[in-house]
Amino acid sequence: MADAVKAVLLFWALRLCIQAAFANPVSRFSVSSDKLVDLSHTFDRTTVYWPTLADNETFRLTTIEDETQSDGVSYRIKFYEAAEHGGTHLDAPSHFSKIGLSVEKIPLDKLMGPAVIIDVREKAARNLDYQVTVQDAYDWEKKYGRIPNGAFVFMNSGWDAFWPDKKKIFNFDNSTGVETYHFPAFHPNTTAFLVFQRYISGLGVDTPSTDYGQAAVFKTHEILANNSAVGFENVKNLGKLASVGAHVIAIPIKITDGTGAPLGLIGINP
Amino acid sequence: MADAVKAVLLFWALRLCIQAAFANPVSRFSVSSDKLVDLSHTFDRTTVYWPTLADNETFRLTTIEDETQSDGVSYRIKFYEAAEHGGTHLDAPSHFSKIGLSVEKIPLDKLMGPAVIIDVREKAARNLDYQVTVQDAYDWEKKYGRIPNGAFVFMNSGWDAFWPDKKKIFNFDNSTGVETYHFPAFHPNTTAFLVFQRYISGLGVDTPSTDYGQAAVFKTHEILANNSAVGFENVKNLGKLASVGAHVIAIPIKITDGTGAPLGLIGINP
Repeated sequence: MADAVKAVLLFWALRLCIQAAFANPVSRFSVSSDKLVDLSHTFDRTTVYWPTLADNETFRLTTIEDETQSDGVSYRIKFYEAAEHGGTHLDAPSHFSKIGLSVEKIPLDKLMGPAVIIDVREKAARNLDYQVTVQDAYDWEKKYGRIPNGAFVFMNSGWDAFWPDKKKIFNFDNSTGVETYHFPAFHPNTTAFLVFQRYISGLGVDTPSTDYGQAAVFKTHEILANNSAVGFENVKNLGKLASVGAHVIAIPIKITDGTGAPLGLIGINP
Repeated sequence: MADAVKAVLLFWALRLCIQAAFANPVSRFSVSSDKLVDLSHTFDRTTVYWPTLADNETFRLTTIEDETQSDGVSYRIKFYEAAEHGGTHLDAPSHFSKIGLSVEKIPLDKLMGPAVIIDVREKAARNLDYQVTVQDAYDWEKKYGRIPNGAFVFMNSGWDAFWPDKKKIFNFDNSTGVETYHFPAFHPNTTAFLVFQRYISGLGVDTPSTDYGQAAVFKTHEILANNSAVGFENVKNLGKLASVGAHVIAIPIKITDGTGAPLGLIGINP
């Protein structure tokens, strides 16, 4: 090999070593817009709430001021109101635990992490009462590797295609009785496995609840709440996130003493 | 040089070249918790709103359900309500422009980007009516380099130390008349410079408005709104962000037709 070639290679070896030594991966934040996925529904009169809530407990936006001044400048302010739990929202541990953290106390880094997407679209299409099994989680791991500590595990049931059609989402029959709801979610055994053996930070579903429609007690909620894990409900666009390698950032409104809150949830594809 | 040494160096040159070729910086998302800075105040009865709003237009949280069932499981749901503009919040272009985008229409990537922190704490301490000047922006550039396209430029006036003391924040005197307010913000000339010559995505202030307290017309608001740029108001913790090299991610509640919204704002230090 010519000396000149060796010199060039050595120069590059040194250059790259120095670069590698000074690179700080934790400080790197660079996301191109085609990697971003919006996982939150918008809030308005069509936003889906738990059917037992009264109409005046669901999202409303009213105008406080709307004027055009003499100089042509226009100006608007509105007023929002809703129950915490509706639309794309966070379940804080305090929702189902007296000593669980309320929304504003959850540390930022417990609301971001790797996303694991478990696709049960076919199973849920055949069975409205489907509950994600421990086997579903194992099957995911067989394909993609161990679920990382601090992950957010999402059920993609395809339910966001029904949004905001309450009838199709809850599959209830002329009734608001909880016993008539049919939609998929996580089986409590799966939640226990993910929380106790995979140390996840939270669960996400594209349906109205992390417990399935037919649940008479809310065991998944209890397991999450009693172990400082969070729930994300009515998530959208999970089909646009990679099954493995994506990250999510969840930012709720920081409501003091809130048991839940409207959630901005973004996914970043690998 | 011994052949063995050459061989090792060549191996590493090749290895690092291959690594560099396959590295995908845009897909990298890894943030350690000590780099995260929470830039949002919490929402409750103490949250600061524009003084002209009525008491029942400011943030309130009320309990819908709070029960402990016979099996010992406890369960809580609350209800939130407030004007869009108060606390740490987003000003959407539609706040001051009839054709400006409302909150839910702003693309995700227009709500994240590099943060530029202009420190005017000393100037604002001496002059409650301080307005950040074009020279302040030039001075920042002299120290840290050109303000990048798509940046969010923040004024750190030190005002978040007064939160939530309305008297110290607005410096009004037994009156809610707008003409008695005194707090710092951006001078409209500076806003014009940053929007038209630096292509920024938005401005942020640790005071209640991007226009200063004594403003009779809201020129900075108009320039932002008419150019699809956003405003972040009542931001906190700007002193904990690096003057250069940090990034911000802003996630509002996606209110359909919202002119503003409570904002989750996080900073990521370099």
